[in-house]
Amino acid sequence: MEEEKMVFILKKNATETEIDNLEQAILSLGLKYRLVIGVDRITISPIGDEIGTQIENLEAMPGVEAYLKVQKPYKLVSRDSHTQYNHNQTRIVDVKGVKFGGDKPVIIAGPCAIEALVDGKPVHALTEVQSENAEYPIFEIAREMKSLGADMLRGGAYKPRTSPYDFQGLGLEGLKILKQASDETNLPCITEVVDTRDAEKVAEYADMLQIGARNMENFELLKEVGRTKKPVLLKRGKSSTMKEWLLAAEYIIAEGNDNIVLCARGIKNNVSEEYGRNQADFDIIYELRKETYLPVIADPSHIGGERGRIPSLAMSALASGAQGLIIEVMKENAKPVEVLCDFKQSLMPSQMKELMSRIKKEYN
Amino acid sequence: MEEEKMVFILKKNATETEIDNLEQAILSLGLKYRLVIGVDRITISPIGDEIGTQIENLEAMPGVEAYLKVQKPYKLVSRDSHTQYNHNQTRIVDVKGVKFGGDKPVIIAGPCAIEALVDGKPVHALTEVQSENAEYPIFEIAREMKSLGADMLRGGAYKPRTSPYDFQGLGLEGLKILKQASDETNLPCITEVVDTRDAEKVAEYADMLQIGARNMENFELLKEVGRTKKPVLLKRGKSSTMKEWLLAAEYIIAEGNDNIVLCARGIKNNVSEEYGRNQADFDIIYELRKETYLPVIADPSHIGGERGRIPSLAMSALASGAQGLIIEVMKENAKPVEVLCDFKQSLMPSQMKELMSRIKKEYN
Amino acid sequence: MEEEKMVFILKKNATETEIDNLEQAILSLGLKYRLVIGVDRITISPIGDEIGTQIENLEAMPGVEAYLKVQKPYKLVSRDSHTQYNHNQTRIVDVKGVKFGGDKPVIIAGPCAIEALVDGKPVHALTEVQSENAEYPIFEIAREMKSLGADMLRGGAYKPRTSPYDFQGLGLEGLKILKQASDETNLPCITEVVDTRDAEKVAEYADMLQIGARNMENFELLKEVGRTKKPVLLKRGKSSTMKEWLLAAEYIIAEGNDNIVLCARGIKNNVSEEYGRNQADFDIIYELRKETYLPVIADPSHIGGERGRIPSLAMSALASGAQGLIIEVMKENAKPVEVLCDFKQSLMPSQMKELMSRIKKEYN
Amino acid sequence: MEEEKMVFILKKNATETEIDNLEQAILSLGLKYRLVIGVDRITISPIGDEIGTQIENLEAMPGVEAYLKVQKPYKLVSRDSHTQYNHNQTRIVDVKGVKFGGDKPVIIAGPCAIEALVDGKPVHALTEVQSENAEYPIFEIAREMKSLGADMLRGGAYKPRTSPYDFQGLGLEGLKILKQASDETNLPCITEVVDTRDAEKVAEYADMLQIGARNMENFELLKEVGRTKKPVLLKRGKSSTMKEWLLAAEYIIAEGNDNIVLCARGIKNNVSEEYGRNQADFDIIYELRKETYLPVIADPSHIGGERGRIPSLAMSALASGAQGLIIEVMKENAKPVEVLCDFKQSLMPSQMKELMSRIKKEYN
Repeated sequence: MEEEKMVFILKKNATETEIDNLEQAILSLGLKYRLVIGVDRITISPIGDEIGTQIENLEAMPGVEAYLKVQKPYKLVSRDSHTQYNHNQTRIVDVKGVKFGGDKPVIIAGPCAIEALVDGKPVHALTEVQSENAEYPIFEIAREMKSLGADMLRGGAYKPRTSPYDFQGLGLEGLKILKQASDETNLPCITEVVDTRDAEKVAEYADMLQIGARNMENFELLKEVGRTKKPVLLKRGKSSTMKEWLLAAEYIIAEGNDNIVLCARGIKNNVSEEYGRNQADFDIIYELRKETYLPVIADPSHIGGERGRIPSLAMSALASGAQGLIIEVMKENAKPVEVLCDFKQSLMPSQMKELMSRIKKEYN
Repeated sequence: MEEEKMVFILKKNATETEIDNLEQAILSLGLKYRLVIGVDRITISPIGDEIGTQIENLEAMPGVEAYLKVQKPYKLVSRDSHTQYNHNQTRIVDVKGVKFGGDKPVIIAGPCAIEALVDGKPVHALTEVQSENAEYPIFEIAREMKSLGADMLRGGAYKPRTSPYDFQGLGLEGLKILKQASDETNLPCITEVVDTRDAEKVAEYADMLQIGARNMENFELLKEVGRTKKPVLLKRGKSSTMKEWLLAAEYIIAEGNDNIVLCARGIKNNVSEEYGRNQADFDIIYELRKETYLPVIADPSHIGGERGRIPSLAMSALASGAQGLIIEVMKENAKPVEVLCDFKQSLMPSQMKELMSRIKKEYN
Repeated sequence: MEEEKMVFILKKNATETEIDNLEQAILSLGLKYRLVIGVDRITISPIGDEIGTQIENLEAMPGVEAYLKVQKPYKLVSRDSHTQYNHNQTRIVDVKGVKFGGDKPVIIAGPCAIEALVDGKPVHALTEVQSENAEYPIFEIAREMKSLGADMLRGGAYKPRTSPYDFQGLGLEGLKILKQASDETNLPCITEVVDTRDAEKVAEYADMLQIGARNMENFELLKEVGRTKKPVLLKRGKSSTMKEWLLAAEYIIAEGNDNIVLCARGIKNNVSEEYGRNQADFDIIYELRKETYLPVIADPSHIGGERGRIPSLAMSALASGAQGLIIEVMKENAKPVEVLCDFKQSLMPSQMKELMSRIKKEYN
Repeated sequence: MEEEKMVFILKKNATETEIDNLEQAILSLGLKYRLVIGVDRITISPIGDEIGTQIENLEAMPGVEAYLKVQKPYKLVSRDSHTQYNHNQTRIVDVKGVKFGGDKPVIIAGPCAIEALVDGKPVHALTEVQSENAEYPIFEIAREMKSLGADMLRGGAYKPRTSPYDFQGLGLEGLKILKQASDETNLPCITEVVDTRDAEKVAEYADMLQIGARNMENFELLKEVGRTKKPVLLKRGKSSTMKEWLLAAEYIIAEGNDNIVLCARGIKNNVSEEYGRNQADFDIIYELRKETYLPVIADPSHIGGERGRIPSLAMSALASGAQGLIIEVMKENAKPVEVLCDFKQSLMPSQMKELMSRIKKEYN
């Protein structure tokens, strides 16, 4: 119960009738109220176990100057509801033994998309004939990431792309390849889901489901991944506030799924900068630790937009309290024509090796 | 020296004199130039050690099409692909006789959501028993809007709400009520679709499908409404660029559905203002007219966030070139407790009447 | 006295000692307080005639959860302090008979900068010899604006430019020319002041002083123009909130100068758009009317950045409640090489004529 | 077809093989190309009916310098103009032996403002009588910072405050106190200058001049501090782009003063977040290293806005490449009523000690 935080400030010249009307309106919502007559100002606080959002409508009543509300709109995801966790400690989300929120940062690595090369060239979709001859770079990448000490494998099968003419992912075929690479290397895998109709199917193949930035407020999709009970990586929307982000998590948890890891991936730059793909937002991690008991990792690749920027962003994220990283990696010395997705921002294994050793030196 | 990066693109029909004049103007700035005669296009690049900002002024010279602008990524929605339309003219999108892009602004009005009152109180969902006794305010609102000269009826049956605990719409029951109110008043109706699985069903009942701001980059949903071939109202994303918006339209049109109307609904405020719900973005309309042949309307209700702000926003949108408005209206003197959705920003019919007469005075 | 709007919310587990300490801290600031013991929450409101900003520091005291403040930080500029004005009415600022805030919109027009042509070419500064032969386009522009019915003449003598290599204005020489053109045409003139050391001198020549967007928080300059007692046009900062803007006006008025007109000139675009120079911000005018009794005009030229955009922006501003416009105009068919400043966004007199007739048709 | 607008700029030392490889890569995408051998630069423009987004990937190929980027408007501050510095190395700015841009991070610490306590209470201004009895907390703070290993002392004598009713600094009296504390502890001192008329006077007392965020585009002030030839700390404007920031530095350097250190201090938050004072902007440091040869430090205090946030922000800044920090510190356990400026965001010496030991552990 946090009802004391909500209060109507009445206008100085509010009439008795106006005050009466406000009181009646509050009662009609099934609530009680507290009237406080101050030196030169009257305030009325609604009281009740369940104060809905309708109460806000009363701000428009005559005689009301303002309606102050400090109450947090999210409940299940909030730290306040989980007093078993000490200050600064978060929930452990376990993905086949990989522990988000544990003692050391979790490193997820892999290609932007699961891609297929036929005759050395990437294809946008696979015919049956092609499938037989196709090569899948993800296998090699997965083995290299395993040897470098990464914890999980990433790879997109359904890709949300700004243009309808860009590569949209290999779909089900991609899922199968991802699962195979995951099984071979014993790295649990994560992939994005973009359609309510696919959630169940994706959950069959992947160990963790990703909700991308563009779908953070696709509420039907959030409910659907909630129902799968699979661990979810929930990326921050392109320009979402912390409150909107936590309410998106609340949609998932309200379906009974609290296996949620948040992922900071930058926000739209607000000063029209020409560099970078997004504005780094690692300072939200400190605030998240206060507000929620869910662990949070960071995605330097989508912030940087260019491979040279990734290492400093990664170290900066960890210094800000990120409990893990998700990083795009491609084959060593891949040629631009061999990669359909995020070539510019993907690290090469040799660069990833260097970054992993910096991370281990500081955080193990 | 980076002179090769700057280039004037000449118009295809640029005359020799115009080309000469541009060359002379460049020389008069103390610069040299390089003329490149391309496959079907001529470009001129200024050369010099110090090229000042004055060079940009030459973009306004006759015969010059552009000065160093990036290629447009959208095709089917672009004005360039539709030369049958004169400058400033847009495609007509016809919804049961209502013509977006025609001679006068199209006015869409109605409640935020289709709501049901049982025993005078709004309910979040209807049981069968309740359905029999329920009252639906939308009928009265629809009749009043018809009498005021509105062209179409709005009302949400599936509501995307930031909190999972807010009213999510009456669903199928709501769709049926909307259709009934639409048939009775002979006002074509529009409603939002939020799930790929619902698109077909919603298309059965509604005359126009709305894609909300939160789903502007829900690409699977865009494809799905594209496949219905129904007219679509595509709202701008909360912080989308014009390019991202037009690419979202391109997803719909790429499925063979070019019955698209764009809707400016404001963007997230970038200076942390405490007033208003969104920052008005009507200045994008001028730019849209240059880039696309699709008509565009505006949504003052979701920008204003408070009823007093709506009229000036509406007039400002039309003055900016909006070809219609979509406005939230509730019952006259509705009490806050009687409305579940957007009470604060809904106009009352008496206020709508006043606004309609201002619009008719200026635009009929 | 608005002290009831400020309140400390105590933590649920606040100890008696913590509450005592907060009370003592409030008393030590020379204030009294009111303690309210709610159902499960205690609040303390400080009371006093003058509650300084130090009170906010107490939010950091143990036991305090939050400090709510609704009080407006500006006083002299606020509508509340000027009850002689009816709702929606603003103060009249009189500049030599031109009345801002009166019955019809005030139109200020003229070149971006006062420029000089020597041998038909613009010069960055004038030698004595050049002065004798120089031509000044502002004279012709001023006469044309007068004939079109404009109310005031604009022209910059000191130009704040993003690059040190751009034309910085003709300085004192420019001031003299502006004054001459103003006297000849009987149009009161306005020009920008950018340095505390120049304020007095500029006030000798100009009828109204302009504070540009970049200097909105140059507080020493605000104080200095406050001391001149001349009418001031205060542009909004590039990304200022309404509160910051009104506090800037408060700096001027605190020096005893309440001859202030606000000028909306757009804010930095927050979605990295590639069109326009700034994001139109006309929806702030509705809010300003509620908060302040000062009149407000708009600057479509610096929002548009390109001449084709100006007319729709101008009409949109007036529809939003702007009480005037300031518009950049150059000579008819001026060549790019003849204009040093804002060529692309300056209207030609023939275009200005068309706009003036649209304005007169609707607002006279 | 607009193919001429896209162009690869080749490096001056690009080899024939590199050029061949780029041509082959373009052909492999199904495109043609145009080679232009310029005065001292070679460019290649891809040609084709449909040029996809993959073409951008080629920017990463050896021999390619850039792909369709706009010309840089700043010159003297750019890295290109200072080829004596190796990649990632910056100019050393020496302030009385303290070396910005050297081997280890420079730590500047001290109170927000130089304040005076009379009878234990802070005063807004000092009368002569008061001066005799006043205590100045900066002396104790300075000694403690010295003992912790800080390199320089900060303290404001002229404070730009959003409200005219807030403490504006002790002025000349403050300068003298700062100088005294600096001399006693042998810590070079820095203070802000806010008025062109004060620049010379401040330069007499301070070892380094600070330009605050609000004055970053106060060009007359920039010129004036340029003329003093004193080292300058140039903070980023509240919502400035990197380009605007570097052009502000260009104003200083154009006056012959290249002793400039840049300071990232966050930008306005663009998603209306309620936490923090500004959005951290440390990812600009990577980009600055590419664009300019000037060193850059960070100000975690003005980003955090609250003392608990400072340590993680500080470590994050250094991980991002910041070459120093400027941090606000107050007396241990100071009471809120004893501090006029930035109480909430000032570290206590005990907290500063902990931070210093983290910094030394990692960076010495």
